[in-house]
Amino acid sequence: MKRFHCAILSLLGFLVVSTSGGAQQVPSASSHVPQYRLPEKGRIPVAFVISDDAVTIDFAGPWEVFKDVFIQERGKTMAEQSVFSLYTVSDSRQPVKTSGGMQIVPDYTFDDAPPPTIVVIPAQTGRSTKMLDWIRKMTLQSDVVMSVCEGSRVLGDAGLLTGKPATTHHMFYDDFHNAFPDVLLKRNRRFVQSDPIIFTSGGLSSGIDLALHIVKLYVGPVRAEQTANILEYEGMGWRGNGEVRSEVSHPPISH
Amino acid sequence: MKRFHCAILSLLGFLVVSTSGGAQQVPSASSHVPQYRLPEKGRIPVAFVISDDAVTIDFAGPWEVFKDVFIQERGKTMAEQSVFSLYTVSDSRQPVKTSGGMQIVPDYTFDDAPPPTIVVIPAQTGRSTKMLDWIRKMTLQSDVVMSVCEGSRVLGDAGLLTGKPATTHHMFYDDFHNAFPDVLLKRNRRFVQSDPIIFTSGGLSSGIDLALHIVKLYVGPVRAEQTANILEYEGMGWRGNGEVRSEVSHPPISH
Repeated sequence: MKRFHCAILSLLGFLVVSTSGGAQQVPSASSHVPQYRLPEKGRIPVAFVISDDAVTIDFAGPWEVFKDVFIQERGKTMAEQSVFSLYTVSDSRQPVKTSGGMQIVPDYTFDDAPPPTIVVIPAQTGRSTKMLDWIRKMTLQSDVVMSVCEGSRVLGDAGLLTGKPATTHHMFYDDFHNAFPDVLLKRNRRFVQSDPIIFTSGGLSSGIDLALHIVKLYVGPVRAEQTANILEYEGMGWRGNGEVRSEVSHPPISH
Repeated sequence: MKRFHCAILSLLGFLVVSTSGGAQQVPSASSHVPQYRLPEKGRIPVAFVISDDAVTIDFAGPWEVFKDVFIQERGKTMAEQSVFSLYTVSDSRQPVKTSGGMQIVPDYTFDDAPPPTIVVIPAQTGRSTKMLDWIRKMTLQSDVVMSVCEGSRVLGDAGLLTGKPATTHHMFYDDFHNAFPDVLLKRNRRFVQSDPIIFTSGGLSSGIDLALHIVKLYVGPVRAEQTANILEYEGMGWRGNGEVRSEVSHPPISH
């Protein structure tokens, strides 16, 4: 099983050397408290940080969640009713090859991306200085900076999780703990709120739960339920505070 | 609620006029019976048919499922252990804007795509003659042609579902029935096998369940469980024959 884990680890690009970010450089994300307010007009911008090997469902799951939030009373057209606007951000506009080889053209670079209210960080190999600097800056001005799966390692490399609770993909708890011993790793969670701005989710589909939780903060549980209903999503982990990761559906695998 | 449905309907691009495909042109998909065999060497090719407005999680969910299937015994490298290879196919290699505006560069066109063993068809507005002809051809030579969400309307427009059972997104059962009265619509299913080759799933996240079901056909339930475990997927709908769509997690929404 160890070999299997290591193989997956390699595939998902987790063996990344920390490239930047000492604790002394790191701003305190708790310097502002988000209000989770809807703007009177216009949509809430959500930025998805991608680079090569970004794990597809890590960003595509939350993408679908935020896309499927509507408030009829806000307008006549779908664009007016739609609550969130979505875009991808990377080091350049050159196509990124995400996991499995899907080619995605980033909408913006870290130099010209519009300021997002919410930032989504999937697992990925990219750790450019610009990416880490941009993410640190966003923790000072955005409402939410959320990682999915081993996207928590990007936050860790940016020095943003030191001394805070966080979670990650369940197969890599030990690896994460070894890489970031000063982070308070929480096991068996769908997601964990790390500070007033930063949230971290478990692996892959857990990002859907965390995105639904964020939706709930902005538009309430009834509309979040409506979004889960549009998605025909049967996972229950988003309803609480992410504290329980079901063990029922995943009995131990024997080889 | 009717207005909300219609709005969503419009957004997802479901009001598509049938452009092609009469019953008289349609080949019988039951002319061959798939064996679901792993090749001795190499991977099983899976093609994802995309065009503008393709619903993101409809293809990204199954993409992640097929990507996360590994058999250690098949080789030393991850590429060798990986069971499925994935690619996108469209009318051209021009970037496609999928739902929410994600820009994806198709890997192949319908003229030059390698022959796939499995074809995944998300909800989308595209209905080119080439697309429908290619999908019809694939039902004669592939093991599996699976639709997700309103991708069932693409199959319907290709004339491939007449007289067969099928399902679709639960909000559009009536619309689907009105558009395709000769299809035997099955309600409240995660997925339905329509004939020996064709499978149709419910909406959005239901595609993950159908993909896991297909994985099970190729590599058995233990490895499919392993994939669900990698995904931290808590949905249970893939374990049976798709017959039950949970109502528990989606109580009626009152406005």
